[in-house]
Amino acid sequence: MKPSLYTCLSPALLHLYDVSNSVVVIIDVLRATSTIATALNNGASAVIPVDSVVECIRIGKELNSITAGERDGQVAEGLQYGNSPFEYPQSFIGGQTLVLTTTNGTKLLHMAHKNGAKQIITGSFPNISRVCDYLLAQNTNVVLACAAWKDKVNIEDTLFAGAVISRLKSHFELACDASQMAESLYHTAQNDLYEFMKERNATHYHRLTKYHLEKDIRYCLTNDGAPSLPFYSEGRLINLS
Amino acid sequence: MKPSLYTCLSPALLHLYDVSNSVVVIIDVLRATSTIATALNNGASAVIPVDSVVECIRIGKELNSITAGERDGQVAEGLQYGNSPFEYPQSFIGGQTLVLTTTNGTKLLHMAHKNGAKQIITGSFPNISRVCDYLLAQNTNVVLACAAWKDKVNIEDTLFAGAVISRLKSHFELACDASQMAESLYHTAQNDLYEFMKERNATHYHRLTKYHLEKDIRYCLTNDGAPSLPFYSEGRLINLS
Repeated sequence: MKPSLYTCLSPALLHLYDVSNSVVVIIDVLRATSTIATALNNGASAVIPVDSVVECIRIGKELNSITAGERDGQVAEGLQYGNSPFEYPQSFIGGQTLVLTTTNGTKLLHMAHKNGAKQIITGSFPNISRVCDYLLAQNTNVVLACAAWKDKVNIEDTLFAGAVISRLKSHFELACDASQMAESLYHTAQNDLYEFMKERNATHYHRLTKYHLEKDIRYCLTNDGAPSLPFYSEGRLINLS
Repeated sequence: MKPSLYTCLSPALLHLYDVSNSVVVIIDVLRATSTIATALNNGASAVIPVDSVVECIRIGKELNSITAGERDGQVAEGLQYGNSPFEYPQSFIGGQTLVLTTTNGTKLLHMAHKNGAKQIITGSFPNISRVCDYLLAQNTNVVLACAAWKDKVNIEDTLFAGAVISRLKSHFELACDASQMAESLYHTAQNDLYEFMKERNATHYHRLTKYHLEKDIRYCLTNDGAPSLPFYSEGRLINLS
């Protein structure tokens, strides 16, 4: 019997899924999970996802590590760096621990952990092949969990879920309509994800282009630029080799 | 300035939308809102949506009216009729009040009411043109509210939202990604909604075909077979002429 794969389009729906027997893939394409994949791929020793700026500062001091996070498109007061994957080249992040606060992705990761997820990894286009290979190898149930935006579903996280499903569907039971919808959306968009986001006037596309972050968006929609596998263990994400 | 149109894919997300200044369209394509449109179009004087079988029996007795509702594909114990639109021809339902209990649609309607919705109507393919004409005429904000299935998003309610958006989008501000996703899904499916449901192995398609209800599904996916406009007022849905 094939394991089941579910897609959860918003953190507000996570309670509907049994995560205790599943690998939960946290998806926050723009830009948390893309940046996490990048930092780890560039040699960060760990990324510690935290809920709040205050907590980020506290842990950053305690561990003498890099703190990062944005609020409304600006580096948050008291933190050092932002959410862009381009801020974390190997020369800067290699061997360092990054304490990162984001609004949607971090909240969802902690929810999944609290709900007793069997395993938690993070997924994004920059590490999509590593994620798919890992899910195939585990041969267990999967919940693709979209971080969304303040609980409202978004296009880019759904597209990533659809991309994963499009690769893995013959190996899993697709047991919910959300997975079918995500894959259908991905099929419509796959020739040019960036153009699709633009054409569909995606709310997050809008938000980031306002800050001139087109380059970030393009990178975050491109496959396998940062082939790490962020695995959550004891409060930190490490690169599973 | 154009009014805004939002799509809410699950009752569990309704709290994210301001319904107090909106017409809320309750969407439960298979089969509650299709059956409501049909009963009213065939001359029912009102449809009273209630949460539970017990309440359905109580109000049915009080008003000496027809009671209907299903649980797990069977007429619920103590009730007289089921959820199929074909059970409500004019010869039977004309001039009658129908007390109807359904799981997802009724719950959502009551939530919208409790949250202070400015107006509530119900939508389905059998009355899609009436719904669109009404929304255009109101020139106010709209929330397309999908009943889903036990809070999990479903394909058919999303398709109906997409169909409405595809007709109305030039007249409204599409202010959320869910609306864009719904319309994109509808575009992919529009040539044959039934085939799309089948091909995508929609959970509800599956559930109903098990009970040999293909004819119901086809009817519920066909435009304008029951051009009524169910409007919620004082606990009952009446046909707005």
